[in-house]
Amino acid sequence: MSDGVVKVGVLGARGRVGAEVCAGVEAAADMELVAAVDAGDDIAALVEAGAEAVVDFTHPDAVMDNLEFCIDHGMHAVVGTTGFDQSRLDVLAGWLADAPGVGVLIAPNFSIGAILMMRFAAAAAPFYESVEVVELHHPTKADAPSGTARRTAELIAAARREAGLGPVPDATSTGLEGARGADVDGIRVHGLRIRGLVAHQEVILGGPGETLTIRHDSLDRASFVPGVLTGLRAIGDHPGLTVGLEHFLDLD
Amino acid sequence: MSDGVVKVGVLGARGRVGAEVCAGVEAAADMELVAAVDAGDDIAALVEAGAEAVVDFTHPDAVMDNLEFCIDHGMHAVVGTTGFDQSRLDVLAGWLADAPGVGVLIAPNFSIGAILMMRFAAAAAPFYESVEVVELHHPTKADAPSGTARRTAELIAAARREAGLGPVPDATSTGLEGARGADVDGIRVHGLRIRGLVAHQEVILGGPGETLTIRHDSLDRASFVPGVLTGLRAIGDHPGLTVGLEHFLDLD
Amino acid sequence: MSDGVVKVGVLGARGRVGAEVCAGVEAAADMELVAAVDAGDDIAALVEAGAEAVVDFTHPDAVMDNLEFCIDHGMHAVVGTTGFDQSRLDVLAGWLADAPGVGVLIAPNFSIGAILMMRFAAAAAPFYESVEVVELHHPTKADAPSGTARRTAELIAAARREAGLGPVPDATSTGLEGARGADVDGIRVHGLRIRGLVAHQEVILGGPGETLTIRHDSLDRASFVPGVLTGLRAIGDHPGLTVGLEHFLDLD
Amino acid sequence: MSDGVVKVGVLGARGRVGAEVCAGVEAAADMELVAAVDAGDDIAALVEAGAEAVVDFTHPDAVMDNLEFCIDHGMHAVVGTTGFDQSRLDVLAGWLADAPGVGVLIAPNFSIGAILMMRFAAAAAPFYESVEVVELHHPTKADAPSGTARRTAELIAAARREAGLGPVPDATSTGLEGARGADVDGIRVHGLRIRGLVAHQEVILGGPGETLTIRHDSLDRASFVPGVLTGLRAIGDHPGLTVGLEHFLDLD
Repeated sequence: MSDGVVKVGVLGARGRVGAEVCAGVEAAADMELVAAVDAGDDIAALVEAGAEAVVDFTHPDAVMDNLEFCIDHGMHAVVGTTGFDQSRLDVLAGWLADAPGVGVLIAPNFSIGAILMMRFAAAAAPFYESVEVVELHHPTKADAPSGTARRTAELIAAARREAGLGPVPDATSTGLEGARGADVDGIRVHGLRIRGLVAHQEVILGGPGETLTIRHDSLDRASFVPGVLTGLRAIGDHPGLTVGLEHFLDLD
Repeated sequence: MSDGVVKVGVLGARGRVGAEVCAGVEAAADMELVAAVDAGDDIAALVEAGAEAVVDFTHPDAVMDNLEFCIDHGMHAVVGTTGFDQSRLDVLAGWLADAPGVGVLIAPNFSIGAILMMRFAAAAAPFYESVEVVELHHPTKADAPSGTARRTAELIAAARREAGLGPVPDATSTGLEGARGADVDGIRVHGLRIRGLVAHQEVILGGPGETLTIRHDSLDRASFVPGVLTGLRAIGDHPGLTVGLEHFLDLD
Repeated sequence: MSDGVVKVGVLGARGRVGAEVCAGVEAAADMELVAAVDAGDDIAALVEAGAEAVVDFTHPDAVMDNLEFCIDHGMHAVVGTTGFDQSRLDVLAGWLADAPGVGVLIAPNFSIGAILMMRFAAAAAPFYESVEVVELHHPTKADAPSGTARRTAELIAAARREAGLGPVPDATSTGLEGARGADVDGIRVHGLRIRGLVAHQEVILGGPGETLTIRHDSLDRASFVPGVLTGLRAIGDHPGLTVGLEHFLDLD
Repeated sequence: MSDGVVKVGVLGARGRVGAEVCAGVEAAADMELVAAVDAGDDIAALVEAGAEAVVDFTHPDAVMDNLEFCIDHGMHAVVGTTGFDQSRLDVLAGWLADAPGVGVLIAPNFSIGAILMMRFAAAAAPFYESVEVVELHHPTKADAPSGTARRTAELIAAARREAGLGPVPDATSTGLEGARGADVDGIRVHGLRIRGLVAHQEVILGGPGETLTIRHDSLDRASFVPGVLTGLRAIGDHPGLTVGLEHFLDLD
């Protein structure tokens, strides 16, 4: 990355997500797309093209082989493929121990907005007596609440515990089942399913006479691209294994 | 009401609500506060002062005697006192049958904003596949969801049935108990309890690619005063018994 | 439309909008897409296929010829093509006078949500001392405020005048140019331009202690399809010329 | 503050703000209100009562004498009185140099929510191409935009410059004067004035396919009390002069 332009290869380049990544890399002034590889193509094209960093949005069955190849050839990797458990992370860490200077980022969520929302919610939590989480999605979603909403509630609950806050006040003594939402670690979480929506979440914090609301609206799947580019820009300076894009966002 | 200025008497004038009504009447250019009566005062003061219309925010134990007195003396009444069941309404209707020209308004809710929200939600419901209700209140509220939210959901459900709409789409197959809120007549209702809030409600309707949101925020208890004044202005033209302020709002 | 299924032809079927209309018609249980015609195709295909109602999303240069053909052949028309001034409407009305039973709908806006927002804003306006309009769009939009926001403000201003309301209160005496937005007929209108947004508008009405907010979010261009289908379902019962989809929405 | 309970004195105790501070101190388990002093009272009461920390919500004409007295007697001070310019701050710093261990906090804004909103907006700004500020207040406010909105825009503009971001995208080429709001350091700021509102602000940030919104609602003037209490709890650990409550909020 000597001249400030990162040479990028994409694995899973013809998938829906990979195609958006390719477009995003091509549009970025400080990157060059040197190889677009998909199932059936020879992964060696990455090396021939001189890729410095590789994006992987492929499949849990393929990703470990892909990463072994990248690490062996000294290429950094930014990975959105799912299916990483602790044993896989341990294997990766082992490979990276033998490849000083190579960095791998495994990120379950590339939405910068979702990461900021969680971060700000946890930072604000110690200052507010009340807090609840509302997530809103399209009605074909199978789980409620969303994984992001659960994770947000867990982070808020941890921040409250650390600050020595007690339970959230709630005088509800009568009503209908479910009216107060789900209980995640003592934090109430509400899930709405409405046609026309994509993926949205709101954290409402309240104290005497005031509320603070942090809302993230994802209106298009392209919203993960800036996060991938942020990962690509930072990975060269973060050798070893990193889990979670938040570690590359300079927020303090 | 010959000169366009309504002479108003207030029963329950020293109560928290009655005091706000008195202030609102005094501030209105087209009204005159001629009598402010509370428990212990002689109700005959209303007649002596020449009150044309009387506001009653007293107590279920007192309101029927008050209204009999008003009707007997040809004074209209605008009533926010609670506790009216069908038998009480029947008694009132009987009294009014013998007093042509006298009007009585019994209103469970004087918030014009809440009435408009319910009206618009029901009017929009036939055009949207999805709809949910979210109400937000201070954490000392005992019931969840709120009475207004339940009533809103019932009105929406009725409007959907009349339009021949089927159930709201929802693919949720896994998750936490309560995450999808309470079920009121097939409509999902969510209740939030947050310090700093007063009384707020939002109806979100959605179809392919768009949502319509109708939100009512009550930030101060003074919000019921404009509804009482609207009732006072209209009651002279509505002899007989009216239940619900919505009948005096010209919305069509 | 004897058996309850409308046979629909689409003009401009291969355009971006027309293609979405075709998909919407095909997905509707009570409609059948019998002809998809675009520039270069023979418009007579509509007649051969037995189309009862025709959708036109073509071009101002083509639409009048298209409509003359439809009216001559007894086919109803639902038109989203732009460019209709009074003289064009007069010509249409003349043609329709000779074709009893045929209906044509010219609609500048097929978004049911936008129509409901304007309708509700105007209906609520007489009850509130304050009101402002905020519209939010993507940053490549050329005009500010949006046409819908201007139209909304004009409708609100008219409703206030009819109700005898004076000017909106505003004590601003110092500040920065533009801070209070644009003035449309005495109503303040604010335009935001933010990457990631599509087309959104919010009307905020306020009186003592309460506010009522009506918000429309258009997240995807497919949002106009339900309005076109509503037009197709109703046009057979509305012979003659209709301007504006709002006349087909049963809102009273 | 040996036993964890702070002995607090209040100057300006019978003013509207001071009275709320007194109530807040009395309600706090870790504080004791030992002296409530107003104009005409003897300030020496603070010393006699053993006050450890003093809150000053008085008048620019009185505050410097008050602070000299407090510093001379080794009492910390938390100050919401306005009118501090650099020369006054220099005088304070001089006095404090001779009183090691004594702390004085001068805070233009005690709303924790407003401080968090500004902090989060500036922290998020480097990650988003677009950003605008909307503030909403009651219609008797004289200035537009609000001071908080201007300060927020300045902080955002500085964060964008530091991150190397160029101008916010905006293709507006036609429209009405004022529609795009006021320009504060290149950031668009919109001010709404609506009856029923108190003090509200929203920062909307947007990038491809997503937006992040940070909103602060102040519904009651009591909202500044938690900030004053936070100042009182922290001032003993912050000798010397501190300007801005944000330095006492542990946000990193």
